[in-house]
Amino acid sequence: VGGTAPLGAIDFGGTKTAVALVDAQGRVLRRLRLDTPARPTPEQAVEHLGRAWEALVADVPAADRPVRVGLTVPGPADAGAGIVRRAFDWGWRDVPLGALLARRLGLPVRLDNDVNACCLAEMRFGVAAGVRDFVWLQLSTGVGGAIVCGGQLHPGAAGLAGEVGHMVLEEGGPPCACGHRGCLEALVSGPAIARRYAEACAGGATPPPAGGDAQGVFRAAQAGDTRAAAVLDGVARDLGRAVAFVANLLDPELVVLGGGVMESLHPWLPAIRRAALERMLEADHRRLRLERSGVGYDAALLGAALLAEG
Amino acid sequence: VGGTAPLGAIDFGGTKTAVALVDAQGRVLRRLRLDTPARPTPEQAVEHLGRAWEALVADVPAADRPVRVGLTVPGPADAGAGIVRRAFDWGWRDVPLGALLARRLGLPVRLDNDVNACCLAEMRFGVAAGVRDFVWLQLSTGVGGAIVCGGQLHPGAAGLAGEVGHMVLEEGGPPCACGHRGCLEALVSGPAIARRYAEACAGGATPPPAGGDAQGVFRAAQAGDTRAAAVLDGVARDLGRAVAFVANLLDPELVVLGGGVMESLHPWLPAIRRAALERMLEADHRRLRLERSGVGYDAALLGAALLAEG
Repeated sequence: VGGTAPLGAIDFGGTKTAVALVDAQGRVLRRLRLDTPARPTPEQAVEHLGRAWEALVADVPAADRPVRVGLTVPGPADAGAGIVRRAFDWGWRDVPLGALLARRLGLPVRLDNDVNACCLAEMRFGVAAGVRDFVWLQLSTGVGGAIVCGGQLHPGAAGLAGEVGHMVLEEGGPPCACGHRGCLEALVSGPAIARRYAEACAGGATPPPAGGDAQGVFRAAQAGDTRAAAVLDGVARDLGRAVAFVANLLDPELVVLGGGVMESLHPWLPAIRRAALERMLEADHRRLRLERSGVGYDAALLGAALLAEG
Repeated sequence: VGGTAPLGAIDFGGTKTAVALVDAQGRVLRRLRLDTPARPTPEQAVEHLGRAWEALVADVPAADRPVRVGLTVPGPADAGAGIVRRAFDWGWRDVPLGALLARRLGLPVRLDNDVNACCLAEMRFGVAAGVRDFVWLQLSTGVGGAIVCGGQLHPGAAGLAGEVGHMVLEEGGPPCACGHRGCLEALVSGPAIARRYAEACAGGATPPPAGGDAQGVFRAAQAGDTRAAAVLDGVARDLGRAVAFVANLLDPELVVLGGGVMESLHPWLPAIRRAALERMLEADHRRLRLERSGVGYDAALLGAALLAEG
């Protein structure tokens, strides 16, 4: 029992929620994708996730249902205690979501923050398989990271390791959600890319496409817009500088670049590498591999499934 | 035999060499301190270290002499192979100093770079005893560091982890020995402190004391020189910003500040802490301890002794 049952996975994101059954090889057997309610209370979150789960498993025979559920959350978490320490956009602090959802589902729930879960998925199913020392950097709406040291995820003393997004790269630069200025996140996240492009277009003859998000900037660059290409070159340089610092400090075997922004930014990998090597100490002695995520968009969901393992 | 013999320790520094016998409790039983020859070749280095060692043990009965020697070197090293990868000031590259000195002494020699050795000494005899995850930062002529993860020194994929000194804190800032500008080392090392003070005094009514080194700046601050105090406040702020980034990334239990500059800068620890907390994410959740080294000036020598352990 349980050995052949699929793993239950819930990726509870800031804007989207995915629930899925996943097999031990990382194949998604079935999935549902829903909008996350705006600014849910913990009670609303439990009800939302409970209904999504019930819809997923409604026509699965009881014997074939998961015996445990893994859950990713969009903020720092105490994985051992099943507590969401913070969900910034929701105003949450120290919510015991693991226990609350377990009661609702009648199943054990193990949770961790989404970035750590993505990193676990990369270790099992992606380009970091078998790598003992690596760093996972995630570029999406925010910029986060996770560190694997000696084959183990390094949680940090307070479970808060991996915050690479708030390295200040540009003193007095653009404001960041954290309250400082010029953080990596304020320079290379999806919203930052959109902002840089809008600034590059301001006052120009051709205005940027309306309602531009980062995807719009990538489309513009592909269509030959030199301002968009210049913005993305700058993003690659900034990201390379951040990679260099992480590499100087940790000398990892591998740095994996994941998250939604990287799914579009990957043609800039050689430029990111050049910018990193320029700033790395003893670059010729280091064996740094810099690679795009091998698990891509499903990273968090696969990571959630791994949390559900025995 | 060997169980009660003292440990042999050689701290082969850029300007000074120390050789010592150390007991298992970290007490220095006897020591000699010499100038390191200017820009030694490997052969000159072996002869220099061999003579220093012979002078140290000359009147020690053969039965009471160490059975193994630990050696620290001022640059990146491959500890396993006993090779000095680089000694920048000497123009060395890939020198098998461990084997060369072992042949000269007729004893096994284990080497590592001085920063790693200091970190080992801090773990055994200093404020990091019993701490599983911490970062050692060393401020002296250069700025280096070492990372302990899960109770083990984290060497990195190429043995080059811990290079915290070349985080760029000030784009276009003062030139650094590494070829870039505005690195932490170019802002808070001993020579950087002297340079900042000279700049602060340039054009002023009172010139700075001649031939000023960092110690002169500390003396001036103690004597009430407000320019010196302002420079050291700035150094503390820059160091705090670097501590914040390391803490955001690794979430260590402890950051230890060591090296010769810290032996004078320690009254600025509260200022360093304030600057770090200002830049740390979720500072209220983190349990960061920030402490001055407990092994002080003897860190490298005690670390060398630990390399000589069985």
